[in-house]
Amino acid sequence: MTKGPVRELAIIRAIRQRAGRAPRVRVGIGDDCAVLEPRPGALLLATTDLLIEDIHFRRAYASPTDIGWKALAVNLSDIASMGGEPRWALVALACPPSTRTEEVEAFYEAAWALADRHEVTVVGGDTSSSPAGWIINLTLLGETTGAPLLRSTARVGDIVAVTGPLGGSAAGLALLSSGATAARLDSGDMDEVRRAHLRPEPRVREGRWLAGAGGVTAMIDLSDGLVTDLGHVCEESLVGARVDADRVPVSSAARRVAAALDGDARAWATGGGEDYELLFTCEPRAWDRIRHGLENATGRLPQAIGEIADRAAGVTFVDAAGRPVALARGFEHFAT
Amino acid sequence: MTKGPVRELAIIRAIRQRAGRAPRVRVGIGDDCAVLEPRPGALLLATTDLLIEDIHFRRAYASPTDIGWKALAVNLSDIASMGGEPRWALVALACPPSTRTEEVEAFYEAAWALADRHEVTVVGGDTSSSPAGWIINLTLLGETTGAPLLRSTARVGDIVAVTGPLGGSAAGLALLSSGATAARLDSGDMDEVRRAHLRPEPRVREGRWLAGAGGVTAMIDLSDGLVTDLGHVCEESLVGARVDADRVPVSSAARRVAAALDGDARAWATGGGEDYELLFTCEPRAWDRIRHGLENATGRLPQAIGEIADRAAGVTFVDAAGRPVALARGFEHFAT
Repeated sequence: MTKGPVRELAIIRAIRQRAGRAPRVRVGIGDDCAVLEPRPGALLLATTDLLIEDIHFRRAYASPTDIGWKALAVNLSDIASMGGEPRWALVALACPPSTRTEEVEAFYEAAWALADRHEVTVVGGDTSSSPAGWIINLTLLGETTGAPLLRSTARVGDIVAVTGPLGGSAAGLALLSSGATAARLDSGDMDEVRRAHLRPEPRVREGRWLAGAGGVTAMIDLSDGLVTDLGHVCEESLVGARVDADRVPVSSAARRVAAALDGDARAWATGGGEDYELLFTCEPRAWDRIRHGLENATGRLPQAIGEIADRAAGVTFVDAAGRPVALARGFEHFAT
Repeated sequence: MTKGPVRELAIIRAIRQRAGRAPRVRVGIGDDCAVLEPRPGALLLATTDLLIEDIHFRRAYASPTDIGWKALAVNLSDIASMGGEPRWALVALACPPSTRTEEVEAFYEAAWALADRHEVTVVGGDTSSSPAGWIINLTLLGETTGAPLLRSTARVGDIVAVTGPLGGSAAGLALLSSGATAARLDSGDMDEVRRAHLRPEPRVREGRWLAGAGGVTAMIDLSDGLVTDLGHVCEESLVGARVDADRVPVSSAARRVAAALDGDARAWATGGGEDYELLFTCEPRAWDRIRHGLENATGRLPQAIGEIADRAAGVTFVDAAGRPVALARGFEHFAT
């Protein structure tokens, strides 16, 4: 959805304002999905992502199978972040004329396999040649049975939580771009972080459960990184947040890869992005119920990492002594 | 929608077959839009187009305003070809870092202006940088009050008709790429054909009227060219067609531009593509009513150009004496 360098253009602000007032548009630009109302009571979620070789992925690391998987996964994650049920996908692909048929087939097969797992039907698309590099656009439509969870509805005092450990994707990217096959790295760790980066698992079941649980007030998926995405929630909700940096769950494999590559696992977990876990806020009194309920329903135990504060407090990460920790803001377009 | 070089891949055939059997998917891959059924009786149309610099347009001819207009126009035309009402657009744009803010604003303003005219709301999108050239993906969602008109339902004996003169877009492209500003060309003609190419007018009102008129059996928009698009209708409907080449309406401005540039206006009208008029088939007994009804409702008088024949006859264009005329098949991706 609209983000990145042009989000502050006057025309985008004007389109955003207009979309917010249009009939049968519940949510326009500014959240993970648009929320449309084809007829009273029936809500439709729509999201689109444009993925470009050497901006969003590199063929040196990512196979056609990886690309097809991830193109759908990132859109599934947008639907998940609103608690929606993904339904229909439109897949547009442009490749250079030199592309082999097997590569194109592998791309579609991967997207289709992931679509099948989430009961999504690929219903259309577009194909063309590209003058240079692969270009993919994936549009995903979904539905919600209840009200979708938004970015803009976090409230002061809410608990801030994430659905799982972070930093695996950035660790995978660091490993892939280093070309390292160091003997001191465990092959299980390497597989895990590469997979976190190339074939992320969107938290569709978790999102649906959280949207229906009651007490969850806002949600977003962690695509741009914890610092940036929590910033989006605070900006849209007109609140601040205080995060205990030590409570941010960091992937164990990412920690070990960081040790081997001289990387910073904490920075990967807070700024790296593309982990596609969900970040949500909830009423404090609902936390225990939600924490155990989500684990029972999906096997994933969420972690509380902080709380929503007044807008004036801004977004701060603090150490165990309550002192602010300086953290790099995540890349809005973290090149993979 | 899916077309072009990969349409014959085994995986696309498999996806197409699966989409055709999925619950709540009335029409999957193979028509201008996917037809979805979010809930019983409510039909949703969805279409997407990926537009890439130097494949689908050239910045030397097309301004950001032209690109923004056309990106939406070609998708409006897909909704029009099914008789739908366009509703919501998702606009994804990637530009090189050197792109000026005014160019990006001009792109969005043009798309927005055309959206406004058709009561479409821009509800989301995506933005990113591009390593080379502009890349746009536009997804458009629409609705139908009645049953959508498909490509696959033409019947032997039906009249084949088009909603207006053809060849203007190809004439415009020929003019733009020749760089000609010949004194013997009328400036009104030059403006008309350039506009036909750069800012086509999708026939949304005409499509809606035809879908509701009764007696219209199939419809498609003329994006790839008359020969190719009529071929799509025949292929999907398992029929053939016989077109009187002399009855194909050719844009007068295109004829004069052809004379000046030594071009072939007939070839432009039958093979050039991108005119975005509608091609439809109808029951012979309904023709007079439809012809005058469409003119009364929209001001456009459709032209009958031939009739649907047995599949074994194939698709033929004949002269006044009934002799087959050889015509180049339209380009599936006619570079602009």
